[in-house]
Amino acid sequence: MNHVMSDGLVNDTPSNGAAAETRSAARRPAEHGRARSGRAYLDAASVAPLHPAAREALLAALDDGWADPRRLHREGSQARLLLDGAREAIAAALGARTPEVGFTGSHVLAVHSAVLGTLRARRRAGTTAVTSAVEHSAVLNATAYGATDVTQVPVDTAGRVDLDAFVAAVQSYGTAIACLQSANGEVGTRQPIEAAAEAAAAAGVPLLVDAAASIGHDTPPAAWDLLIADPRAWGAPSGLGVFAIRERTRWLAAGPEHDGLERVAGEVFIPAALAAAVSLQAVTAEREVEAPRRRRLVERLRAAAAAVPDVEVVGDAEDRLPHVATFSCLFVDGEVLVGELDRAGYAVGSGSACTAASLRPSHVLAAMGVLTHGNVRVGLPVGVSEEAVRGFCAALPGAVARVRAMLGASDL
Amino acid sequence: MNHVMSDGLVNDTPSNGAAAETRSAARRPAEHGRARSGRAYLDAASVAPLHPAAREALLAALDDGWADPRRLHREGSQARLLLDGAREAIAAALGARTPEVGFTGSHVLAVHSAVLGTLRARRRAGTTAVTSAVEHSAVLNATAYGATDVTQVPVDTAGRVDLDAFVAAVQSYGTAIACLQSANGEVGTRQPIEAAAEAAAAAGVPLLVDAAASIGHDTPPAAWDLLIADPRAWGAPSGLGVFAIRERTRWLAAGPEHDGLERVAGEVFIPAALAAAVSLQAVTAEREVEAPRRRRLVERLRAAAAAVPDVEVVGDAEDRLPHVATFSCLFVDGEVLVGELDRAGYAVGSGSACTAASLRPSHVLAAMGVLTHGNVRVGLPVGVSEEAVRGFCAALPGAVARVRAMLGASDL
Repeated sequence: MNHVMSDGLVNDTPSNGAAAETRSAARRPAEHGRARSGRAYLDAASVAPLHPAAREALLAALDDGWADPRRLHREGSQARLLLDGAREAIAAALGARTPEVGFTGSHVLAVHSAVLGTLRARRRAGTTAVTSAVEHSAVLNATAYGATDVTQVPVDTAGRVDLDAFVAAVQSYGTAIACLQSANGEVGTRQPIEAAAEAAAAAGVPLLVDAAASIGHDTPPAAWDLLIADPRAWGAPSGLGVFAIRERTRWLAAGPEHDGLERVAGEVFIPAALAAAVSLQAVTAEREVEAPRRRRLVERLRAAAAAVPDVEVVGDAEDRLPHVATFSCLFVDGEVLVGELDRAGYAVGSGSACTAASLRPSHVLAAMGVLTHGNVRVGLPVGVSEEAVRGFCAALPGAVARVRAMLGASDL
Repeated sequence: MNHVMSDGLVNDTPSNGAAAETRSAARRPAEHGRARSGRAYLDAASVAPLHPAAREALLAALDDGWADPRRLHREGSQARLLLDGAREAIAAALGARTPEVGFTGSHVLAVHSAVLGTLRARRRAGTTAVTSAVEHSAVLNATAYGATDVTQVPVDTAGRVDLDAFVAAVQSYGTAIACLQSANGEVGTRQPIEAAAEAAAAAGVPLLVDAAASIGHDTPPAAWDLLIADPRAWGAPSGLGVFAIRERTRWLAAGPEHDGLERVAGEVFIPAALAAAVSLQAVTAEREVEAPRRRRLVERLRAAAAAVPDVEVVGDAEDRLPHVATFSCLFVDGEVLVGELDRAGYAVGSGSACTAASLRPSHVLAAMGVLTHGNVRVGLPVGVSEEAVRGFCAALPGAVARVRAMLGASDL
């Protein structure tokens, strides 16, 4: 027997006790948005909760995927088979050829390796890196470290790169690499990847597409020379990076030699790679339903935020990721507002206080020229319930008002 | 009711169905040596099978350890608490202070970062790295990459570093870092760490101790400035490195800036860190029983190998790791012998064919001046059954004879 859940998705009803309950939980997308009863996790713009399919695959692979895949014995061969299978499945979902896909120990390491290895391989062609001003900090840090010169191309108030300026920079003499994200993970705005790729190809400059924010939620980009994906975005375990290079693209490992199986030094936790593959397949299969459904919820969130006095909703209104809604509140400290919403039962992120390590305001918001304080980013996980979004929209005005009252907004 | 298992360890008998069976399996050390029924996994010198305690901790932490530990919401704080707890437990087991312990995405990355960061921080003091000739390839690769000069100090036929030569090299002008493993993972020989540490301290040179082969099996070294441990050695998931630095030791991250919580760029899979902590505690608690027990089994293995014609048992006979036995067989290809033993139900390693990526013979065996072909390395996991060792000893002569016959040894 099936019944329709509150978010409109059809789900099996458990019928034979605990085993069915477990299977059912693994299939129930509406669960993903709930970290625990009474709470809604809405910070899935960078890290999504573990997808039930990822969890299941991780557990299944623990028994066969722990050995060193380079070993010649049966346990090693089994691990190697799982690793190869994970690579193949991820390649298929990314529209890449299997040998193009490599794993690293983290998303940051994938970005660093992609940037530094390209700069190393193309030293004679140039030493300049071109990026948008709103790339992930890993891209900005890697280009700052590895390139002699960096051109950071400005963005408009929606966060979209100035395409003409980007193309001009790519065509400049001495450009070794061009880096453009598929979409901005903080504000959701998509970037003009195809046009940038066309210009980069014409100029003979490799294009690195950081698709960490979009893969798992949005159609994967087709035009790239190097592609970065972040398994945490689609509910896979952390501690794994994915980085693909087209076979014709020149790249040389920057760093000590190593005898591992991947381009980049360091072994892979194979059960995590398998979990990443399986959950990417799962979210890809759900995308046709989940993308438009969450897009409607994001529209509702943006409207609800815009209705709160002195709140600025940021990012492109149309050409955007389906799951991210971002806004900034005047007279409010982002960190405090995140805490207040947390107490109200909603886990969200903030570009004003996104990390404990860095209390600098978001470089993305600064580059867009919008309010950098009082920022809240809502990231809807795959399968989020409509109820959670409705609850958040209802809770938001009160939370903002309470924080404003606490901070003595009337004095500002 | 308890019963005594074949390896002499006492174990609970399951008494109430599946739940008790699961608990019992988690407590049954004799299971670790068996990858699956009828097979014995005896390649635990580098990668041990997942420890039941690690598996249990990993599963328990999946629900609370998936979020970004830098986030301000409850899910982030929970993940942070687990990460801090894992760090504290590992520090205690290593004899380190908690803030000294850092995680990386792999053992190789831990070694690279430790070496390159020390060289970077001490550029003005010197640009020479001193290592033994039998360090892990990651140490040799990192020093070759990062140091202007490398002094590789020779070893004797047991694989033990020439201490006088090592001390002289450490005292030489321009030495920036000294690297000495606690014990050699390929042949089991312990190194004179305390004497090396004394000399390094007197010379004001930081000592990097790669204890990847010993921690989890042998008493952790006490004298070090930088310490490397490999969680795979004690049955924790792969994709995690541990690297500790004494608070007084100078070190500067080599590579792009990053905004992560660890010294080295890249996020940690927190359930794996917790699994590493819990299984390190478990094997530490078992060490007093497991080290002498496996030492006796290793003696039996070495004697059995020595009894096969034209077989050379390598590594120090006494001052050695408790779980590693290595020998080389004349007229035999190591890869083929590993395959033959695999078919006989025993997974072992080989220094002659240790990786699919590198078919070079072991640099360790070459430095010792012993046979580099026909090499077999047996690594006994914690809890290995006496029966598995007995079976291996019985199967070895026939396997060697079959391979010799296949290769037409009479013609050689």
